[in-house]
Amino acid sequence: MIADLIKANRSCRRFDEGHPIHLDTLMALVDLARLSASAANLQPLKYILSCDAEINAQIFNCLKWAGYLKAWVGPAIGERPSGYIVVLNDTRISKTMDCDHGIASQSILLGAREMGLAGCMLAAVNRPKLSAALEIPDHLKILLVLAIGKPIEQIVIDPVGANGDIRYWRDDHQVHHVPKRALEEIVVKHY
Amino acid sequence: MIADLIKANRSCRRFDEGHPIHLDTLMALVDLARLSASAANLQPLKYILSCDAEINAQIFNCLKWAGYLKAWVGPAIGERPSGYIVVLNDTRISKTMDCDHGIASQSILLGAREMGLAGCMLAAVNRPKLSAALEIPDHLKILLVLAIGKPIEQIVIDPVGANGDIRYWRDDHQVHHVPKRALEEIVVKHY
Repeated sequence: MIADLIKANRSCRRFDEGHPIHLDTLMALVDLARLSASAANLQPLKYILSCDAEINAQIFNCLKWAGYLKAWVGPAIGERPSGYIVVLNDTRISKTMDCDHGIASQSILLGAREMGLAGCMLAAVNRPKLSAALEIPDHLKILLVLAIGKPIEQIVIDPVGANGDIRYWRDDHQVHHVPKRALEEIVVKHY
Repeated sequence: MIADLIKANRSCRRFDEGHPIHLDTLMALVDLARLSASAANLQPLKYILSCDAEINAQIFNCLKWAGYLKAWVGPAIGERPSGYIVVLNDTRISKTMDCDHGIASQSILLGAREMGLAGCMLAAVNRPKLSAALEIPDHLKILLVLAIGKPIEQIVIDPVGANGDIRYWRDDHQVHHVPKRALEEIVVKHY
């Protein structure tokens, strides 16, 4: 059931870094994005993949994790992602980008989840630094970095409380809580 | 397998309009979007649902279908969608929108596909006209309209040819062909 997969597919930020991810796994995940919808079928998305420890470290140094967890600087050594997919817009194909990268990234992370992996879409990226580190040509604009690994984090969905606070938080047992708005709140009208 | 579902989930533009879609189906689909990732977990997306013939007709009149099929004005009566999900950004929650609507729409259409339905994400929308028709308040900005119905269209994926043309087309048997770029073209670098 896709509903179970979507529910299980939580943004994950702590991984078993010792669990390797192989290139063919990342390729299979990008293939899911390739077969997903694209505005006007232009398919401007391009991808850079890494399952190499040294490159992973360079990518990691360009990321900012979990904006709401002020005391946490991101996953410690040993708990970092084993792989990355950098999602790029080829501006030679399309100058603008609506939401192709959202469609593609959702396909990729659902695929990862089905494989027993998990990931996180990171938009807080030091783009000039990452472009320089990976020698990304100017016509490829970094949209997102998808971090992927074997999850070691417990994540639960809570209803948004009366105060309306949607910030995720961690409890004393390091369980990550994600408040989600109710269906009644987000469906504003129906016929 | 999510790969099979993603492959089967083609943008569909001709439906069996006699096949009704019920409100609880559209609600279940929005619930999949609700449980999907959202940038900074802000969840600014709101939804208007229709499975009402009169409202469907009003929404239909605000849409432009299949830009590459110049001779085709969109699905004929009897082949139009039985339901719509209008995806909105609540600008009181977030002024800007990265790709939440792509993530959400992919979840919705994968869910629809699993139910034997199909859909299409339409961005070519006459937004002022639709806002007026559905009396959408100013703070809700229309992002996409998702058309949903029982598919009657055959759609195949082709490799992009040597000329690089990515425009979809219909053959003499009304089969809809969608050229997709090869994996080797879209993965620009790997480590």
